[in-house]
Amino acid sequence: MADRIDRHTSGVYIIAATPFTDDGALDLASLDRLIDFYAEKGVTGLTILGIMGEADKLTAEERITVLERVLARTSLPVIVGVSDAGIGNLAALALHAMDKGAAGVMVAPARGPARDDRVVNYFHAVCDALGDDVPVCFQDFPQITGVPVSPRTILELTRDRPQIVMLKHEDCPGLPKITTIRKAEEAGSPRLSILVGNGGLYLPQELARGVDGAMTGFAYPEALVEIVRLHLGGEADRAEDIFDAYLPILRHEQQPVFGLAVRKAILMKRGAIASAATRAPGPRLSATDLVELDRLMARTTDKLKDL
Amino acid sequence: MADRIDRHTSGVYIIAATPFTDDGALDLASLDRLIDFYAEKGVTGLTILGIMGEADKLTAEERITVLERVLARTSLPVIVGVSDAGIGNLAALALHAMDKGAAGVMVAPARGPARDDRVVNYFHAVCDALGDDVPVCFQDFPQITGVPVSPRTILELTRDRPQIVMLKHEDCPGLPKITTIRKAEEAGSPRLSILVGNGGLYLPQELARGVDGAMTGFAYPEALVEIVRLHLGGEADRAEDIFDAYLPILRHEQQPVFGLAVRKAILMKRGAIASAATRAPGPRLSATDLVELDRLMARTTDKLKDL
Amino acid sequence: MADRIDRHTSGVYIIAATPFTDDGALDLASLDRLIDFYAEKGVTGLTILGIMGEADKLTAEERITVLERVLARTSLPVIVGVSDAGIGNLAALALHAMDKGAAGVMVAPARGPARDDRVVNYFHAVCDALGDDVPVCFQDFPQITGVPVSPRTILELTRDRPQIVMLKHEDCPGLPKITTIRKAEEAGSPRLSILVGNGGLYLPQELARGVDGAMTGFAYPEALVEIVRLHLGGEADRAEDIFDAYLPILRHEQQPVFGLAVRKAILMKRGAIASAATRAPGPRLSATDLVELDRLMARTTDKLKDL
Amino acid sequence: MADRIDRHTSGVYIIAATPFTDDGALDLASLDRLIDFYAEKGVTGLTILGIMGEADKLTAEERITVLERVLARTSLPVIVGVSDAGIGNLAALALHAMDKGAAGVMVAPARGPARDDRVVNYFHAVCDALGDDVPVCFQDFPQITGVPVSPRTILELTRDRPQIVMLKHEDCPGLPKITTIRKAEEAGSPRLSILVGNGGLYLPQELARGVDGAMTGFAYPEALVEIVRLHLGGEADRAEDIFDAYLPILRHEQQPVFGLAVRKAILMKRGAIASAATRAPGPRLSATDLVELDRLMARTTDKLKDL
Repeated sequence: MADRIDRHTSGVYIIAATPFTDDGALDLASLDRLIDFYAEKGVTGLTILGIMGEADKLTAEERITVLERVLARTSLPVIVGVSDAGIGNLAALALHAMDKGAAGVMVAPARGPARDDRVVNYFHAVCDALGDDVPVCFQDFPQITGVPVSPRTILELTRDRPQIVMLKHEDCPGLPKITTIRKAEEAGSPRLSILVGNGGLYLPQELARGVDGAMTGFAYPEALVEIVRLHLGGEADRAEDIFDAYLPILRHEQQPVFGLAVRKAILMKRGAIASAATRAPGPRLSATDLVELDRLMARTTDKLKDL
Repeated sequence: MADRIDRHTSGVYIIAATPFTDDGALDLASLDRLIDFYAEKGVTGLTILGIMGEADKLTAEERITVLERVLARTSLPVIVGVSDAGIGNLAALALHAMDKGAAGVMVAPARGPARDDRVVNYFHAVCDALGDDVPVCFQDFPQITGVPVSPRTILELTRDRPQIVMLKHEDCPGLPKITTIRKAEEAGSPRLSILVGNGGLYLPQELARGVDGAMTGFAYPEALVEIVRLHLGGEADRAEDIFDAYLPILRHEQQPVFGLAVRKAILMKRGAIASAATRAPGPRLSATDLVELDRLMARTTDKLKDL
Repeated sequence: MADRIDRHTSGVYIIAATPFTDDGALDLASLDRLIDFYAEKGVTGLTILGIMGEADKLTAEERITVLERVLARTSLPVIVGVSDAGIGNLAALALHAMDKGAAGVMVAPARGPARDDRVVNYFHAVCDALGDDVPVCFQDFPQITGVPVSPRTILELTRDRPQIVMLKHEDCPGLPKITTIRKAEEAGSPRLSILVGNGGLYLPQELARGVDGAMTGFAYPEALVEIVRLHLGGEADRAEDIFDAYLPILRHEQQPVFGLAVRKAILMKRGAIASAATRAPGPRLSATDLVELDRLMARTTDKLKDL
Repeated sequence: MADRIDRHTSGVYIIAATPFTDDGALDLASLDRLIDFYAEKGVTGLTILGIMGEADKLTAEERITVLERVLARTSLPVIVGVSDAGIGNLAALALHAMDKGAAGVMVAPARGPARDDRVVNYFHAVCDALGDDVPVCFQDFPQITGVPVSPRTILELTRDRPQIVMLKHEDCPGLPKITTIRKAEEAGSPRLSILVGNGGLYLPQELARGVDGAMTGFAYPEALVEIVRLHLGGEADRAEDIFDAYLPILRHEQQPVFGLAVRKAILMKRGAIASAATRAPGPRLSATDLVELDRLMARTTDKLKDL
């Protein structure tokens, strides 16, 4: 069984897409292939059943199927998205995942008024329901959840609940937030692993501010791996050169909603999955969109030759 | 099997609470008692698995259990809330419900940008997935969905999809919307059954503007039944006198989120369910809240004596 | 010059409408009449240039005109709404208002992400710009501002900025929030005057939880005055009987947006202003709306006879 | 006097920043210098008093001052942002601007529920207030206004109000929206000039889909000018190479809120304005932010050498 995440976890946790056939059925063969693809590209771990994994469109059984399939397929650490409207369902899925060998679970604040007291109480209730030994990644994604969270709220939870070991940072603008948290740690707050999302759109800047890596689903995982590796290895300039080569397509994939269809199309073109289908109501690429994407992919290939 | 809803359905469809035990388990004995309670109070039909039924905190199995239990218990028409992030899951639940004898299904616009084209396309996709013979109630509840919808969008869908037979109206302010729709019908648009929500907070005014009744979960269903009956029977003044007597507690119950705990507490005090528990994260009444509620209930009883 | 507001201010501060002529010009004669009307009805003070005063549709000059006209007309304490996208403009209006004899200013959190740190920093910046001796009323109205605020954030500001003396409470659900704040005061937090908004929709319950009165614009100010007076004088039952008689029309007036047109129509029918016009884009009552309103006003009159 | 915008306007309309001194006063000398800077970089026109121009933090007098200063300084066409909570104030500023020689005005949907009928009625009321001969640019920026608008709503307004000649497109994802509108035009809808915002983050793709240029405030206006010029001149590949070189810093500047401080810092470093100050409450760069920015600016310079 892989190690569990902790407050020093670093690297690239790729947000795994969930492959479907063209008619919307779960495509387990593609899921296997996709897991292998991610592993070959050198990711540190995987995060499954997240927003971009269309977890909310799976049935409960399908979520279990995906979870067990992935955990059986890979020895890499796997974080499982378990956000749910009810804490009971959330905890049941989380405990099942941990039982099957997950490295931790990811939880976003529940929808509702963005009051700090509500967020704090919610995470205490979640942690109580999970028990102390389930490592939790706090997903800070206000563009989707509608719940912006301050650094001091995050730091309060980090201090009071040792099991909250990781921050999936995708607030935007979010660069000063990273610096605020890292400075608080220097002043005595417990350390938190910070992995960044948003497709990696600000990855070099975020690494320079002290994050530990990325947790996002960019369809060129090798780019994330290389950028993080180089940066953490002291080669920030080289890391950023590589980032810049990928940036045009990364930015294209990072568009809300539409971007999921782009991501799956790239994964299909790269041979990682059989179909780019998303479940309804989901985005779908038109012929125009596909021509545009082919051009961006070709330009990316060309740029990499020059590096 | 009860009749299906259609474009002339009228009366009171009570939004059924889902009873839990104090530790959060589904309480089927209370569910039976609650269904009987609603029937005794004279409701026309029931709506189950709605937002106030905490459907999003049930497991998929529990939703089926509730659905089948209710349909087995009552011969009244039952509308089933089937809103879901994915159309596949939505349709599966809807078709199962219809197969078990439901009178129709209720669907709200999916979360996302409030663009009219997105809402229209979504309902076409939903109707396609359901097939033509499943009657649909369009739930127009922008305070919760975040998706305001114009009368003209509703009318377009009503015209193009004959199976959309009912509007659950709970936009606010919403009185002019009712008038706009009824005037369009006079000018040739297909008729739509309109039942109002929002706890019934504007029920006399809405009836005067031509709605067909109420679909809401007020814990005194007999009030809704009597008000609608009297109004449709030509006794608008008497209907409004009764409404006014209930209004203080109705308004209290109508507060967002908090109101669900109030509603369940009233249902428990009235003997309809064994526990007022909601599932986490859900509202809970404090001692102060309960004293306040007792006072409002007692005042309601006093007022009714004077009528 | 009237007294300034402080942490023990109580009573009814009526939110003053801004009267326009039918063609949208500022109607100063009606403004005089309206101020006199409010005074005759026994209000403790006035709040001008608030959201319901359509302050954002006045020119800067008109705001000054209204401010000076009201302060010249009445010896009652006047709170001036000064919320503005920029702190410079906010402070300039506030200092002018205080210079002309205002009793304090009202400020809502600026639009933006609902992070507690942002709200706290914003109010510190506002207080710094105002100087220590301008009394501030914190307007907590998340339905309009989009910024929900926790009791602990309010208490932190109350403790750190002695000039924040009053809370205009119109969060909803908001009853537990009042109790949380009053309990914190018992435990040592500085006292805060709390006046409630939301049209007074929960006034009896809010008074029972320890608020000091109301700050809202209900077009029957004498009702608010009497309810608060009776309650604070120990006659809670009688206060609530009067409240209940007004509740049907109060609830009608309390509808978002539409309610402003209702309020102005009532004020016009009661002789307090010459025209019910609002500035574009603003709500306007149709013939149907007006018939409905007449009925509600007549029913209110009848109910009052029975008390 | 410069030409007015029309349905075939193309090129780059730079969104002008409003320069302040370090203590927040309007800096007219810098405003002159900035206008000259933009002109030297080859922009087609300017857009002033927009959101990124901090128009909502200016006094009414300052808006007039800026407007008149800019119109006196340049012979380029100037579009004036006139969005305002009230239509009266909006029209007054617009008519003054046109009288002084503006090329058109820019209007965003007023805040409020995102119903298509409300947006349509609002723009009719605006156009009625402006009169038929004031050219209007429809600002479609739902991330800020909270009002997403469908292509069909835009097309309806374009058809019914000939004075709506331009769309400032900054919906996101927005690429399919452009294609939908252009296809509708091929099918007979009146042509609309489309200039794109969002900092130009998708400019090559948007040009390929048929937009007429950009209206955004990127602090390297010469990049926008060159990219649009090359693309419209048939050199799409070269245009995109240049875009890609700027993309890292463009993406950095495009962060919400924070980005305005970045933009002004770049403009200051480039000598176009004396201070990077924004008015409170506004973003401010920390020492860390400035080091980060210097690095990105230096890398941009290096990349340009290689082109």
